[in-house]
Amino acid sequence: MGHNRSTQRVCLGVKMSFSNSGAPCPIGRFFPQRILLTTPLAAPLAEPLQKEFVRAQVRHVPNDELSREDFRWADTWVGFDLPSWTFAGEVSVKWFHSQSDGVDKSAPILAASGANYVLTHSVGDMPRRIGEYVLAYHLWLTRGGDLFRANEQTGAWDTDFFNNYVDPRAATVVVIGTGEVGCGVARVLSAYGIEAVGLNTSGRQVEEFSACYPLHEGAPHLRKATLVVSALPLTPATDKIISRDLLSNLNGAVFMNVGRGPTVDSDAVHWALDSGHLAKAVLDVHEVEPLPPSDWRWGHPQVVVTPHVSGPLTRSDIFEAFTECARSLAEGVLPDLAVDAKRGY
Amino acid sequence: MGHNRSTQRVCLGVKMSFSNSGAPCPIGRFFPQRILLTTPLAAPLAEPLQKEFVRAQVRHVPNDELSREDFRWADTWVGFDLPSWTFAGEVSVKWFHSQSDGVDKSAPILAASGANYVLTHSVGDMPRRIGEYVLAYHLWLTRGGDLFRANEQTGAWDTDFFNNYVDPRAATVVVIGTGEVGCGVARVLSAYGIEAVGLNTSGRQVEEFSACYPLHEGAPHLRKATLVVSALPLTPATDKIISRDLLSNLNGAVFMNVGRGPTVDSDAVHWALDSGHLAKAVLDVHEVEPLPPSDWRWGHPQVVVTPHVSGPLTRSDIFEAFTECARSLAEGVLPDLAVDAKRGY
Repeated sequence: MGHNRSTQRVCLGVKMSFSNSGAPCPIGRFFPQRILLTTPLAAPLAEPLQKEFVRAQVRHVPNDELSREDFRWADTWVGFDLPSWTFAGEVSVKWFHSQSDGVDKSAPILAASGANYVLTHSVGDMPRRIGEYVLAYHLWLTRGGDLFRANEQTGAWDTDFFNNYVDPRAATVVVIGTGEVGCGVARVLSAYGIEAVGLNTSGRQVEEFSACYPLHEGAPHLRKATLVVSALPLTPATDKIISRDLLSNLNGAVFMNVGRGPTVDSDAVHWALDSGHLAKAVLDVHEVEPLPPSDWRWGHPQVVVTPHVSGPLTRSDIFEAFTECARSLAEGVLPDLAVDAKRGY
Repeated sequence: MGHNRSTQRVCLGVKMSFSNSGAPCPIGRFFPQRILLTTPLAAPLAEPLQKEFVRAQVRHVPNDELSREDFRWADTWVGFDLPSWTFAGEVSVKWFHSQSDGVDKSAPILAASGANYVLTHSVGDMPRRIGEYVLAYHLWLTRGGDLFRANEQTGAWDTDFFNNYVDPRAATVVVIGTGEVGCGVARVLSAYGIEAVGLNTSGRQVEEFSACYPLHEGAPHLRKATLVVSALPLTPATDKIISRDLLSNLNGAVFMNVGRGPTVDSDAVHWALDSGHLAKAVLDVHEVEPLPPSDWRWGHPQVVVTPHVSGPLTRSDIFEAFTECARSLAEGVLPDLAVDAKRGY
């Protein structure tokens, strides 16, 4: 973990310039006394947290049983998304710890509350796991996985693949978004011998990539790409940034979205598949989740749908993130894993 | 290529002890004069071979148009399997070069002929590509690929995977057969952070594996394995060696066969799947190829069938193997890529 954490920091990019190191904590020195766990993934943390924080009370309340009383009782919360009613009543929670990386649902609630709090999140080994997802599907497609699965339906013995083998390492990869997730993708691909170009806002260079360019100058790179991976956070600036305009640069590439669903205009993806700009789409995130069973993506032969599972966090990731943050809070220092609720990441 | 070739040699294992280095060539100093290419994959080599061997005649005759006359004309053959009638008439060919690694169809014809010849084969980057196939399917299965494909049929949003993520690097892998293919598998897995135990005849240690044991003492390792990969050549000793007896040691493992089809008792695989000893089977090779459309494997929900494509060789692999062999033959030295037709590998 220590090793992963430090290499992640190397590539935090934008976040590095907002490093919290040494910043004073808005809630002062803080020691969790009453810890509220609200999700199935967090529930089994009750016992190890109790052992680590011997003087605290630890309570698990399932999401669908949460009451205002729970939020009045607790000073510390560990969960996924805050209920939208959280600040409709009095809330005693000072420290909100997200079991996931993304906080785009909870952050607006906190930002609008005017309350005094710290919001932290969990990163853990998530960027590497997202890279693993990208490599898994890249190898699967390049090694003919989809083709052979289709041929299983009819028992067709099609060996053309053998005579037309294309080395997965010969892919021309463009990653849009060079934050921690984009870096995780680049790092896993690079370890397999696949270099990636990065596109980001400013064109600043990020170590994990062979080179980085500003997104608005990305067209020449997108035209050559055989694999385009979007690893963007959701902000007002990235909403539907993967548009028909952007996708029209592609020439039969595979597109994967492992960032946030609403960054992609899904109608544009449909159009790009049908017009040949895209050969395949591997979509882990969607503008509406769960994706309704009637959505076109489920049944489209060139689309792989997964249910937002590319970047799992494990209980030990969450536990370690929580205890790391707790150490900073005990010293009255803003944790490195603190996020700015107003900025949303 | 040079780098790959040398690392492959490190792990040739059994073959190394039969190294041909310096052995005299049974056909003396030999220079190809009339080169016969007989397969679609070899056909495009006509031009580069003509450039390399300027004094030779190069002829491509499709497999289904081959005649005795062609074999009387040629002194050098490049193809896949020799036609069974090859030696029914007079044959002038002295050098038989296989475009593939396996020679188990051609070798018996040559061994029975009593002729004076050299048989060589192509290895190239094939062992690494077989390792890539194993990694591709291992990641696919571990990352829920099969599950999510199934859920696409109904639009089911099943995120249990997220909360139960198992690191693909935590697999306990046993590779049966530690020759060049087994080493290729171990090398690719190891680069991804997955150690493998090897099982071979004698239990001799092979560098690519964390440890090797004799196959007859393999049971304790098979019992713990989550992934068992068979990478065995076909010999009388390995025929149906992957038996019900062997598979009964497994406890819900994934089994992959990237060796030779007849080394596996396919009825035993069926039994092991149905009785829970196997969770999945990924089968690239089969005792009958093409696998008939009616075969149970095509339709079995726990089986992935691919049509003998795990270890592609490219034209440049074949070209380089051929020219490397030609250099040795020109010096009257048995090429390192020569195989013993009587032994069959």
